[in-house]
Amino acid sequence: MERHFHEELQRLKQDLLYMASLAEAMVDQSVKALKEREEKLLQEVFQKEEKLNRLQIEIDDQCFKLLALHQPMATDLRFIIATMKITSDLERIGDLAINIAQNTTTLLKHPSLKPLIDIPRMAEIAQRMLRDSLDAFVNRDVDLARDVVLRDDEVDALKDQVFRELLTYMISDPTTIPRALELILVSRHLERVGDHATNIGEDVIYMVLGKDIRHRAEMI
Amino acid sequence: MERHFHEELQRLKQDLLYMASLAEAMVDQSVKALKEREEKLLQEVFQKEEKLNRLQIEIDDQCFKLLALHQPMATDLRFIIATMKITSDLERIGDLAINIAQNTTTLLKHPSLKPLIDIPRMAEIAQRMLRDSLDAFVNRDVDLARDVVLRDDEVDALKDQVFRELLTYMISDPTTIPRALELILVSRHLERVGDHATNIGEDVIYMVLGKDIRHRAEMI
Repeated sequence: MERHFHEELQRLKQDLLYMASLAEAMVDQSVKALKEREEKLLQEVFQKEEKLNRLQIEIDDQCFKLLALHQPMATDLRFIIATMKITSDLERIGDLAINIAQNTTTLLKHPSLKPLIDIPRMAEIAQRMLRDSLDAFVNRDVDLARDVVLRDDEVDALKDQVFRELLTYMISDPTTIPRALELILVSRHLERVGDHATNIGEDVIYMVLGKDIRHRAEMI
Repeated sequence: MERHFHEELQRLKQDLLYMASLAEAMVDQSVKALKEREEKLLQEVFQKEEKLNRLQIEIDDQCFKLLALHQPMATDLRFIIATMKITSDLERIGDLAINIAQNTTTLLKHPSLKPLIDIPRMAEIAQRMLRDSLDAFVNRDVDLARDVVLRDDEVDALKDQVFRELLTYMISDPTTIPRALELILVSRHLERVGDHATNIGEDVIYMVLGKDIRHRAEMI
Protein backbone atom coordinates (compact mmCIF):
# COMPACT_ATOMS: atom_id res chain seq x y z
CA MET A 1 0.00 0.00 0.00
CA GLU A 2 2.67 2.47 1.07
CA ARG A 3 4.86 1.67 -1.91
CA HIS A 4 1.91 1.92 -4.21
CA PHE A 5 1.15 5.36 -2.77
CA HIS A 6 4.65 6.63 -3.50
CA GLU A 7 4.48 5.31 -7.04
CA GLU A 8 1.25 7.24 -7.45
CA LEU A 9 2.94 10.40 -6.21
CA GLN A 10 5.72 9.88 -8.76
CA ARG A 11 3.17 9.47 -11.50
CA LEU A 12 1.43 12.64 -10.37
CA LYS A 13 4.72 14.54 -10.60
CA GLN A 14 5.38 13.22 -14.13
CA ASP A 15 1.91 14.17 -15.29
CA LEU A 16 2.24 17.64 -13.82
CA LEU A 17 5.59 18.19 -15.56
CA TYR A 18 4.08 17.06 -18.83
CA MET A 19 1.19 19.48 -18.35
CA ALA A 20 3.67 22.29 -17.62
CA SER A 21 5.71 21.56 -20.75
CA LEU A 22 2.51 21.74 -22.81
CA ALA A 23 1.54 25.11 -21.28
CA GLU A 24 5.02 26.47 -21.90
CA ALA A 25 5.00 25.28 -25.52
CA MET A 26 1.68 27.08 -26.06
CA VAL A 27 3.13 30.38 -24.84
CA ASP A 28 6.28 29.85 -26.88
CA GLN A 29 4.45 29.08 -30.12
CA SER A 30 1.89 31.87 -29.78
CA VAL A 31 4.61 34.50 -29.38
CA LYS A 32 6.79 32.93 -32.09
CA ALA A 33 3.82 33.03 -34.47
CA LEU A 34 3.47 36.74 -33.68
CA LYS A 35 7.13 37.61 -33.97
CA GLU A 36 7.82 35.63 -37.14
CA ARG A 37 4.37 36.11 -38.63
CA GLU A 38 3.86 32.38 -39.05
CA GLU A 39 0.17 31.71 -39.00
CA LYS A 40 0.43 27.93 -39.07
CA LEU A 41 2.07 27.89 -35.62
CA LEU A 42 -1.21 29.22 -34.26
CA GLN A 43 -2.99 26.01 -35.21
CA GLU A 44 -0.63 24.09 -32.97
CA VAL A 45 -1.47 26.37 -30.06
CA PHE A 46 -5.21 25.93 -30.54
CA GLN A 47 -4.81 22.16 -30.86
CA LYS A 48 -2.98 21.85 -27.55
CA GLU A 49 -5.70 23.51 -25.50
CA GLU A 50 -8.02 20.54 -25.25
CA LYS A 51 -5.20 18.26 -24.17
CA LEU A 52 -4.12 20.73 -21.50
CA ASN A 53 -7.64 21.00 -20.13
CA ARG A 54 -8.06 17.22 -20.08
CA LEU A 55 -4.78 16.87 -18.18
CA GLN A 56 -5.96 19.30 -15.53
CA ILE A 57 -9.09 17.23 -14.91
CA GLU A 58 -7.11 13.99 -14.81
CA ILE A 59 -4.45 15.31 -12.42
CA ASP A 60 -7.03 16.88 -10.11
CA ASP A 61 -8.91 13.57 -10.07
CA GLN A 62 -5.72 11.72 -9.16
CA CYS A 63 -5.11 14.21 -6.32
CA PHE A 64 -8.61 13.83 -5.01
CA LYS A 65 -8.37 10.04 -5.02
CA LEU A 66 -5.00 10.11 -3.27
CA LEU A 67 -6.43 12.39 -0.57
CA ALA A 68 -9.53 10.25 -0.14
CA LEU A 69 -7.88 6.82 -0.21
CA HIS A 70 -4.57 7.43 1.54
CA GLN A 71 -5.34 10.38 3.80
CA PRO A 72 -1.73 11.53 3.62
CA MET A 73 -0.11 13.61 6.34
CA ALA A 74 2.24 16.61 6.43
CA THR A 75 4.70 16.58 3.50
CA ASP A 76 2.63 14.41 1.18
CA LEU A 77 -0.52 16.34 1.96
CA ARG A 78 1.22 19.59 1.12
CA PHE A 79 2.61 18.08 -2.08
CA ILE A 80 -0.85 17.06 -3.26
CA ILE A 81 -2.40 20.40 -2.38
CA ALA A 82 0.41 22.23 -4.19
CA THR A 83 -0.18 20.03 -7.24
CA MET A 84 -3.86 20.98 -7.36
CA LYS A 85 -2.99 24.65 -7.12
CA ILE A 86 -0.35 24.34 -9.84
CA THR A 87 -2.75 22.67 -12.31
CA SER A 88 -5.03 25.74 -12.02
CA ASP A 89 -2.13 28.02 -12.80
CA LEU A 90 -1.06 25.91 -15.78
CA GLU A 91 -4.57 25.78 -17.14
CA ARG A 92 -4.80 29.57 -16.95
CA ILE A 93 -1.42 29.92 -18.66
CA GLY A 94 -2.87 27.83 -21.48
CA ASP A 95 -5.85 30.21 -21.65
CA LEU A 96 -3.47 33.16 -21.85
CA ALA A 97 -1.56 31.52 -24.72
CA ILE A 98 -4.91 31.10 -26.49
CA ASN A 99 -5.63 34.79 -25.93
CA ILE A 100 -2.23 35.69 -27.40
CA ALA A 101 -2.91 33.42 -30.38
CA GLN A 102 -6.24 35.21 -30.92
CA ASN A 103 -4.59 38.64 -30.79
CA THR A 104 -1.98 37.31 -33.23
CA THR A 105 -4.66 36.04 -35.61
CA THR A 106 -5.96 39.61 -35.82
CA LEU A 107 -2.50 41.14 -36.08
CA LEU A 108 -1.39 38.88 -38.94
CA LYS A 109 -4.21 40.25 -41.10
CA HIS A 110 -2.42 43.61 -41.19
CA PRO A 111 1.12 44.78 -41.94
CA SER A 112 3.57 44.60 -39.07
CA LEU A 113 3.53 47.73 -36.88
CA LYS A 114 7.15 47.44 -35.79
CA PRO A 115 9.79 44.77 -35.22
CA LEU A 116 9.04 43.19 -31.87
CA ILE A 117 11.77 43.19 -29.24
CA ASP A 118 10.26 43.69 -25.80
CA ILE A 119 7.31 41.33 -26.22
CA PRO A 120 9.47 38.30 -27.17
CA ARG A 121 11.77 39.27 -24.30
CA MET A 122 8.81 39.28 -21.90
CA ALA A 123 7.77 35.87 -23.22
CA GLU A 124 11.28 34.52 -22.71
CA ILE A 125 11.45 35.69 -19.10
CA ALA A 126 7.95 34.43 -18.30
CA GLN A 127 8.67 31.01 -19.84
CA ARG A 128 11.92 30.76 -17.93
CA MET A 129 10.09 31.65 -14.72
CA LEU A 130 7.57 28.91 -15.43
CA ARG A 131 10.26 26.31 -16.12
CA ASP A 132 12.23 27.28 -13.02
CA SER A 133 9.12 27.23 -10.82
CA LEU A 134 8.46 23.65 -11.89
CA ASP A 135 12.12 22.69 -11.37
CA ALA A 136 11.86 24.22 -7.92
CA PHE A 137 8.74 22.13 -7.31
CA VAL A 138 10.34 18.87 -8.38
CA ASN A 139 13.58 19.47 -6.48
CA ARG A 140 11.93 21.15 -3.48
CA ASP A 141 14.32 24.03 -4.16
CA VAL A 142 13.22 27.01 -2.06
CA ASP A 143 16.02 29.28 -3.28
CA LEU A 144 15.06 28.80 -6.90
CA ALA A 145 11.39 29.36 -6.02
CA ARG A 146 12.26 32.64 -4.29
CA ASP A 147 14.29 33.66 -7.30
CA VAL A 148 11.26 33.10 -9.57
CA VAL A 149 9.09 35.26 -7.31
CA LEU A 150 11.60 38.11 -7.48
CA ARG A 151 11.87 38.00 -11.27
CA ASP A 152 8.24 39.05 -11.62
CA ASP A 153 9.30 42.71 -11.41
CA GLU A 154 11.30 42.40 -14.65
CA VAL A 155 8.21 41.31 -16.53
CA ASP A 156 6.18 44.16 -15.05
CA ALA A 157 8.82 46.71 -16.03
CA LEU A 158 8.84 45.45 -19.63
CA LYS A 159 5.07 45.60 -19.73
CA ASP A 160 5.17 49.29 -18.76
CA GLN A 161 7.81 49.95 -21.38
CA VAL A 162 5.72 48.27 -24.09
CA PHE A 163 2.72 50.33 -23.03
CA ARG A 164 4.54 53.65 -23.17
CA GLU A 165 6.09 52.92 -26.56
CA LEU A 166 2.82 51.85 -28.15
CA LEU A 167 1.01 54.85 -26.73
CA THR A 168 3.46 57.06 -28.65
CA TYR A 169 2.67 55.19 -31.87
CA MET A 170 -1.05 55.56 -31.38
CA ILE A 171 -0.95 59.25 -30.60
CA SER A 172 1.30 60.15 -33.51
CA ASP A 173 -0.58 57.99 -36.03
CA PRO A 174 -4.17 56.94 -35.27
CA THR A 175 -4.15 54.33 -38.03
CA THR A 176 -1.87 52.27 -35.77
CA ILE A 177 -4.42 52.18 -32.93
CA PRO A 178 -6.08 48.80 -33.57
CA ARG A 179 -2.73 47.02 -33.95
CA ALA A 180 -1.12 48.79 -31.01
CA LEU A 181 -4.10 47.81 -28.84
CA GLU A 182 -3.70 44.15 -29.72
CA LEU A 183 0.00 44.32 -28.85
CA ILE A 184 -0.78 45.97 -25.51
CA LEU A 185 -3.16 43.12 -24.74
CA VAL A 186 -0.48 40.57 -25.68
CA SER A 187 1.91 42.19 -23.19
CA ARG A 188 -0.78 42.05 -20.47
CA HIS A 189 -1.31 38.35 -21.14
CA LEU A 190 2.43 37.73 -20.83
CA GLU A 191 2.51 39.69 -17.59
CA ARG A 192 -0.13 37.30 -16.27
CA VAL A 193 1.88 34.26 -17.36
CA GLY A 194 4.63 35.67 -15.11
CA ASP A 195 2.09 36.11 -12.30
CA HIS A 196 1.08 32.46 -12.53
CA ALA A 197 4.73 31.32 -12.46
CA THR A 198 5.08 33.49 -9.35
CA ASN A 199 2.07 31.77 -7.79
CA ILE A 200 3.73 28.42 -8.45
CA GLY A 201 6.96 29.64 -6.84
CA GLU A 202 4.97 30.67 -3.75
CA ASP A 203 3.23 27.31 -3.64
CA VAL A 204 6.62 25.57 -3.71
CA ILE A 205 7.85 27.64 -0.76
CA TYR A 206 4.68 26.79 1.12
CA MET A 207 5.02 23.12 0.27
CA VAL A 208 8.62 22.89 1.45
CA LEU A 209 8.66 25.23 4.43
CA GLY A 210 5.03 24.92 5.41
CA LYS A 211 4.70 28.66 5.59
CA ASP A 212 2.71 30.96 3.45
CA ILE A 213 4.71 33.75 1.84
CA ARG A 214 1.89 35.12 -0.21
CA HIS A 215 1.42 38.79 0.63
CA ARG A 216 4.37 38.73 3.02
CA ALA A 217 7.12 40.37 1.07
CA GLU A 218 9.38 40.59 4.08
CA MET A 219 9.71 36.81 4.21
CA ILE A 220 11.18 36.47 0.73
CA MET B 1 -14.33 15.28 18.05
CA GLU B 2 -16.90 14.83 15.31
CA ARG B 3 -19.02 17.68 16.64
CA HIS B 4 -15.96 19.84 16.91
CA PHE B 5 -15.11 19.09 13.28
CA HIS B 6 -18.51 20.21 12.06
CA GLU B 7 -18.27 23.39 14.06
CA GLU B 8 -14.94 24.04 12.37
CA LEU B 9 -16.55 23.54 8.96
CA GLN B 10 -19.25 26.04 9.90
CA ARG B 11 -16.63 28.56 10.92
CA LEU B 12 -14.79 27.98 7.65
CA LYS B 13 -17.98 28.72 5.73
CA GLN B 14 -18.57 31.94 7.69
CA ASP B 15 -15.02 33.12 7.10
CA LEU B 16 -15.26 32.38 3.40
CA LEU B 17 -18.51 34.33 3.10
CA TYR B 18 -16.92 37.25 4.90
CA MET B 19 -13.95 37.13 2.53
CA ALA B 20 -16.33 37.07 -0.46
CA SER B 21 -18.27 40.09 0.81
CA LEU B 22 -15.01 41.98 1.14
CA ALA B 23 -13.94 41.12 -2.43
CA GLU B 24 -17.34 42.14 -3.75
CA ALA B 25 -17.23 45.46 -1.87
CA MET B 26 -13.82 46.19 -3.41
CA VAL B 27 -15.17 45.70 -6.94
CA ASP B 28 -18.25 47.74 -6.12
CA GLN B 29 -16.34 50.68 -4.67
CA SER B 30 -13.68 50.77 -7.38
CA VAL B 31 -16.30 51.03 -10.13
CA LYS B 32 -18.44 53.46 -8.14
CA ALA B 33 -15.38 55.69 -7.67
CA LEU B 34 -14.90 55.64 -11.44
CA LYS B 35 -18.53 56.25 -12.35
CA GLU B 36 -19.17 58.99 -9.82
CA ARG B 37 -15.63 60.39 -9.88
CA GLU B 38 -15.30 60.03 -6.11
CA GLU B 39 -11.65 59.70 -5.33
CA LYS B 40 -12.06 59.04 -1.63
CA LEU B 41 -13.82 55.74 -2.33
CA LEU B 42 -10.54 54.50 -3.78
CA GLN B 43 -8.87 54.73 -0.39
CA GLU B 44 -11.40 52.27 0.95
CA VAL B 45 -10.57 49.82 -1.83
CA PHE B 46 -6.83 50.03 -1.15
CA GLN B 47 -7.39 49.64 2.59
CA LYS B 48 -9.35 46.41 2.17
CA GLU B 49 -6.64 44.59 0.24
CA GLU B 50 -4.48 43.66 3.18
CA LYS B 51 -7.43 42.30 5.10
CA LEU B 52 -8.49 40.20 2.11
CA ASN B 53 -5.02 38.75 1.71
CA ARG B 54 -4.78 37.94 5.41
CA LEU B 55 -8.13 36.17 5.26
CA GLN B 56 -6.94 33.98 2.41
CA ILE B 57 -3.94 32.83 4.42
CA GLU B 58 -6.06 32.19 7.50
CA ILE B 59 -8.73 30.23 5.65
CA ASP B 60 -6.17 28.15 3.74
CA ASP B 61 -4.45 27.39 7.05
CA GLN B 62 -7.75 26.28 8.56
CA CYS B 63 -8.34 24.01 5.54
CA PHE B 64 -4.91 22.50 5.79
CA LYS B 65 -5.33 21.78 9.49
CA LEU B 66 -8.75 20.22 8.94
CA LEU B 67 -7.32 17.96 6.23
CA ALA B 68 -4.33 16.97 8.35
CA LEU B 69 -6.15 16.45 11.67
CA HIS B 70 -9.47 14.99 10.59
CA GLN B 71 -8.65 13.33 7.28
CA PRO B 72 -12.20 13.90 6.05
CA MET B 73 -13.84 11.73 3.41
CA ALA B 74 -16.06 12.34 0.39
CA THR B 75 -18.40 15.31 0.91
CA ASP B 76 -16.34 17.05 3.58
CA LEU B 77 -13.13 16.53 1.64
CA ARG B 78 -14.71 18.08 -1.45
CA PHE B 79 -16.04 20.97 0.64
CA ILE B 80 -12.58 21.77 1.99
CA ILE B 81 -10.91 21.51 -1.41
CA ALA B 82 -13.59 23.75 -2.93
CA THR B 83 -12.98 26.28 -0.15
CA MET B 84 -9.26 26.43 -0.93
CA LYS B 85 -9.98 26.96 -4.61
CA ILE B 86 -12.53 29.68 -3.86
CA THR B 87 -10.11 31.65 -1.65
CA SER B 88 -7.70 31.86 -4.62
CA ASP B 89 -10.48 33.22 -6.81
CA LEU B 90 -11.52 35.76 -4.19
CA GLU B 91 -7.98 36.93 -3.68
CA ARG B 92 -7.60 37.46 -7.42
CA ILE B 93 -10.88 39.33 -7.56
CA GLY B 94 -9.41 41.63 -4.90
CA ASP B 95 -6.33 42.13 -7.10
CA LEU B 96 -8.58 43.02 -10.03
CA ALA B 97 -10.44 45.59 -7.91
CA ILE B 98 -7.05 47.09 -7.03
CA ASN B 99 -6.20 47.23 -10.74
CA ILE B 100 -9.49 49.00 -11.45
CA ALA B 101 -8.79 51.43 -8.61
CA GLN B 102 -5.37 52.17 -10.14
CA ASN B 103 -6.88 52.80 -13.58
CA THR B 104 -9.45 55.03 -11.89
CA THR B 105 -6.74 57.00 -10.08
CA THR B 106 -5.28 57.84 -13.50
CA LEU B 107 -8.66 58.55 -15.07
CA LEU B 108 -9.74 60.96 -12.34
CA LYS B 109 -6.79 63.22 -13.15
CA HIS B 110 -8.44 64.05 -16.49
CA PRO B 111 -11.90 65.18 -17.61
CA SER B 112 -14.47 62.45 -18.09
CA LEU B 113 -14.38 60.90 -21.58
CA LYS B 114 -18.04 59.96 -21.65
CA PRO B 115 -20.82 59.01 -19.24
CA LEU B 116 -20.26 55.38 -18.33
CA ILE B 117 -23.10 52.93 -18.93
CA ASP B 118 -21.69 49.59 -20.04
CA ILE B 119 -18.83 49.40 -17.54
CA PRO B 120 -21.07 49.86 -14.46
CA ARG B 121 -23.45 47.33 -16.06
CA MET B 122 -20.58 44.83 -16.44
CA ALA B 123 -19.63 45.41 -12.80
CA GLU B 124 -23.21 44.82 -11.71
CA ILE B 125 -23.48 41.51 -13.56
CA ALA B 126 -20.07 40.32 -12.36
CA GLN B 127 -20.88 41.18 -8.73
CA ARG B 128 -24.20 39.43 -8.98
CA MET B 129 -22.45 36.35 -10.41
CA LEU B 130 -20.04 36.41 -7.51
CA ARG B 131 -22.80 36.70 -4.92
CA ASP B 132 -24.83 33.93 -6.54
CA SER B 133 -21.82 31.64 -6.83
CA LEU B 134 -21.27 31.94 -3.07
CA ASP B 135 -24.98 31.42 -2.38
CA ALA B 136 -24.78 28.32 -4.55
CA PHE B 137 -21.79 27.16 -2.52
CA VAL B 138 -23.48 27.65 0.84
CA ASN B 139 -26.76 26.06 -0.24
CA ARG B 140 -25.17 23.38 -2.43
CA ASP B 141 -27.41 24.70 -5.20
CA VAL B 142 -26.24 23.20 -8.50
CA ASP B 143 -28.91 24.96 -10.57
CA LEU B 144 -27.83 28.37 -9.35
CA ALA B 145 -24.17 27.45 -9.95
CA ARG B 146 -24.97 26.45 -13.54
CA ASP B 147 -26.84 29.69 -14.01
CA VAL B 148 -23.75 31.66 -12.91
CA VAL B 149 -21.57 29.78 -15.41
CA LEU B 150 -23.97 30.62 -18.24
CA ARG B 151 -24.09 34.33 -17.38
CA ASP B 152 -20.40 34.71 -18.22
CA ASP B 153 -21.32 35.26 -21.89
CA GLU B 154 -23.21 38.45 -21.02
CA VAL B 155 -20.10 39.94 -19.47
CA ASP B 156 -18.00 38.97 -22.49
CA ALA B 157 -20.49 40.54 -24.89
CA LEU B 158 -20.44 43.81 -22.94
CA LYS B 159 -16.65 43.78 -22.93
CA ASP B 160 -16.63 43.55 -26.75
CA GLN B 161 -19.15 46.37 -26.96
CA VAL B 162 -17.02 48.61 -24.72
CA PHE B 163 -13.97 47.82 -26.83
CA ARG B 164 -15.63 48.71 -30.13
CA GLU B 165 -17.09 51.94 -28.80
CA LEU B 166 -13.81 53.14 -27.32
CA LEU B 167 -11.93 52.24 -30.49
CA THR B 168 -14.21 54.68 -32.35
CA TYR B 169 -13.39 57.42 -29.86
CA MET B 170 -9.66 56.84 -30.18
CA ILE B 171 -9.63 56.82 -33.96
CA SER B 172 -11.74 59.95 -34.35
CA ASP B 173 -9.86 61.89 -31.66
CA PRO B 174 -6.35 60.77 -30.64
CA THR B 175 -6.38 62.98 -27.54
CA THR B 176 -8.83 60.46 -26.07
CA ILE B 177 -6.40 57.54 -26.44
CA PRO B 178 -4.87 57.42 -22.96
CA ARG B 179 -8.28 57.63 -21.25
CA ALA B 180 -9.90 55.16 -23.63
CA LEU B 181 -7.06 52.69 -22.97
CA GLU B 182 -7.60 52.87 -19.23
CA LEU B 183 -11.31 52.24 -19.71
CA ILE B 184 -10.59 49.24 -21.95
CA LEU B 185 -8.37 47.81 -19.23
CA VAL B 186 -11.11 48.36 -16.64
CA SER B 187 -13.52 46.37 -18.80
CA ARG B 188 -10.94 43.54 -19.10
CA HIS B 189 -10.55 43.44 -15.33
CA LEU B 190 -14.31 43.19 -14.91
CA GLU B 191 -14.43 40.40 -17.48
CA ARG B 192 -11.96 38.51 -15.30
CA VAL B 193 -14.05 39.08 -12.18
CA GLY B 194 -16.82 37.30 -14.10
CA ASP B 195 -14.37 34.50 -15.00
CA HIS B 196 -13.51 33.96 -11.35
CA ALA B 197 -17.19 33.84 -10.37
CA THR B 198 -17.58 31.23 -13.12
CA ASN B 199 -14.71 29.23 -11.63
CA ILE B 200 -16.48 29.29 -8.27
CA GLY B 201 -19.71 28.10 -9.92
CA GLU B 202 -17.79 25.20 -11.46
CA ASP B 203 -16.22 24.34 -8.12
CA VAL B 204 -19.67 24.22 -6.54
CA ILE B 205 -20.91 21.80 -9.19
CA TYR B 206 -17.85 19.64 -8.63
CA MET B 207 -18.32 19.77 -4.87
CA VAL B 208 -21.97 18.73 -5.01
CA LEU B 209 -22.02 16.28 -7.90
CA GLY B 210 -18.46 15.08 -7.67
CA LYS B 211 -17.97 15.64 -11.37
CA ASP B 212 -15.81 18.10 -13.11
CA ILE B 213 -17.62 20.33 -15.60
CA ARG B 214 -14.65 22.47 -16.45
CA HIS B 215 -14.07 22.35 -20.19
CA ARG B 216 -17.11 20.16 -20.72
CA ALA B 217 -19.73 22.52 -22.02
CA GLU B 218 -22.12 19.71 -22.90
CA MET B 219 -22.58 18.84 -19.24
CA ILE B 220 -23.96 22.23 -18.27
